[in-house]
Amino acid sequence: MTQNTVEKTPVTLLGLGAMGTALARTWLAAGHQVTVWNRTPARATALAAEGAAAADSAAEAVAANALVVVCLLNDTAVDEVLAGADLAGRDLVNLTTSTPAQARARAEWARERGARYLDGGIMAVPPMIGVPEAGGYVFYSGSSELFERHQQTLGVPVGTAYVGEDAGFAALHDVALLSAMYGMFAGSAHAFALIRKEDIDPAALAVLLADWLIAMAPAVHRTADQLRSGDYTQHVVSNLAMQVAGTPTFVSTAEQQGVSPELLSPYFELMRRRLAEGSGEEDLTGVIDLLVR
Amino acid sequence: MTQNTVEKTPVTLLGLGAMGTALARTWLAAGHQVTVWNRTPARATALAAEGAAAADSAAEAVAANALVVVCLLNDTAVDEVLAGADLAGRDLVNLTTSTPAQARARAEWARERGARYLDGGIMAVPPMIGVPEAGGYVFYSGSSELFERHQQTLGVPVGTAYVGEDAGFAALHDVALLSAMYGMFAGSAHAFALIRKEDIDPAALAVLLADWLIAMAPAVHRTADQLRSGDYTQHVVSNLAMQVAGTPTFVSTAEQQGVSPELLSPYFELMRRRLAEGSGEEDLTGVIDLLVR
Repeated sequence: MTQNTVEKTPVTLLGLGAMGTALARTWLAAGHQVTVWNRTPARATALAAEGAAAADSAAEAVAANALVVVCLLNDTAVDEVLAGADLAGRDLVNLTTSTPAQARARAEWARERGARYLDGGIMAVPPMIGVPEAGGYVFYSGSSELFERHQQTLGVPVGTAYVGEDAGFAALHDVALLSAMYGMFAGSAHAFALIRKEDIDPAALAVLLADWLIAMAPAVHRTADQLRSGDYTQHVVSNLAMQVAGTPTFVSTAEQQGVSPELLSPYFELMRRRLAEGSGEEDLTGVIDLLVR
Repeated sequence: MTQNTVEKTPVTLLGLGAMGTALARTWLAAGHQVTVWNRTPARATALAAEGAAAADSAAEAVAANALVVVCLLNDTAVDEVLAGADLAGRDLVNLTTSTPAQARARAEWARERGARYLDGGIMAVPPMIGVPEAGGYVFYSGSSELFERHQQTLGVPVGTAYVGEDAGFAALHDVALLSAMYGMFAGSAHAFALIRKEDIDPAALAVLLADWLIAMAPAVHRTADQLRSGDYTQHVVSNLAMQVAGTPTFVSTAEQQGVSPELLSPYFELMRRRLAEGSGEEDLTGVIDLLVR
């Protein structure tokens, strides 16, 4: 312990699902006073045995500390749980999974009640909480003043990344990254399906797959540069016309292996549509514009 | 040059598109004799100025050397170009993009003509040829004897990875990895589309996206372990029921941002179908089984 140890900020935490419980434990372990409340009291009782103060109601928990962290099932639950609480002067940090629009509405709702508001989008699963080397973090957006004041406390369980005053940006970044991940998982599912009936060890394919995906992921930097410049023919490695010409091999291979092409077809269809617009010299970036209405 | 320098294997190369030309150049630069042929003679003439021997016909080029590398537009072109060539005793290496079934049929076709056969699937684009640090490589499958004899020569322009006696396995691995990559690109396209109308720098999102995709790519190892064991509930981080519960946030966010969910919907639909089969405690791995007929 250093000589200039300052008083650790006490934290109120509403919602003790797997994530909330993991957060509470790391704050307790780091020496913060933690006041908890959960709809099902048993979980709060368990944490009380580890040093937390278990409040009898959400309102009582909110009254206990200036910093109030909410980690509930969904936005409707936030409404219900905070209905009777006095939020005036509170620093409300909402880690509940929300859409950007829900987060923006919640920020306005909090402002009307006299609270500062920070929305969070969690890029981690409970086992990554309190394990810095796991690389998890939370996107925050909304009040930069609130973020700066509590950054140290918020950073105890997991890393932090502030992405702007717009309260919806944390949720938007969260959804964007997870959407991209699901695309990668969909592509990997197709790859594993292709070898399912062959005498090929899935673990051997996985080694090749992971290396290849890791090598190809930085292509997003080129995409971003093209989006910024508006010139999608910039630094093209393999142009759209060539890539579309290659797609029948992918579809035929899927058919030969008895695999439905349904996870790849929509992307190939957008590639063809963009090519039909006369964009054969472009990179794949034009597909993005076809997605946006 | 080392003292025990051995004679470099002379190479015949049929097909001088961007890839064939890049291959020829690296072999020439490494001191191999290279005999080339191309349907359009101008490209062979250009390489002759760099030291290659330009054959007057494909048959003459095939007769010149035991090692014959073919890099043509497609499988039909291989038929046409090699129609009049005597392949008896040749070591035929076919780098033409093929499906696994085309590669297997071509291996049998070559065997009937007295040639040993190796099929290749190129995990690189022309600018990566002759640039070892670019990390490109070629999958090879078919005759292991041919591969071992010529591994050093084949490894001059780009790395090599032998994946089995089944001539179709190189194409299958190639298609599997590129399919997964297209899935990742589709997911990234959706992510960029989500922020298209927002005041968010695409380059800043790209940094987060690349890091996140690189961090999540190793999840394929867990998938492989589950496929091997047949137990998809093994080492689950976030189960299918929880992940399906999260999908409305992704679809709503896309709608709010004016983005078509068409690139994500097919995967989410398969997740829902698998959940409906009573697999809520599983990982996402069960989706793979739904793809295979």
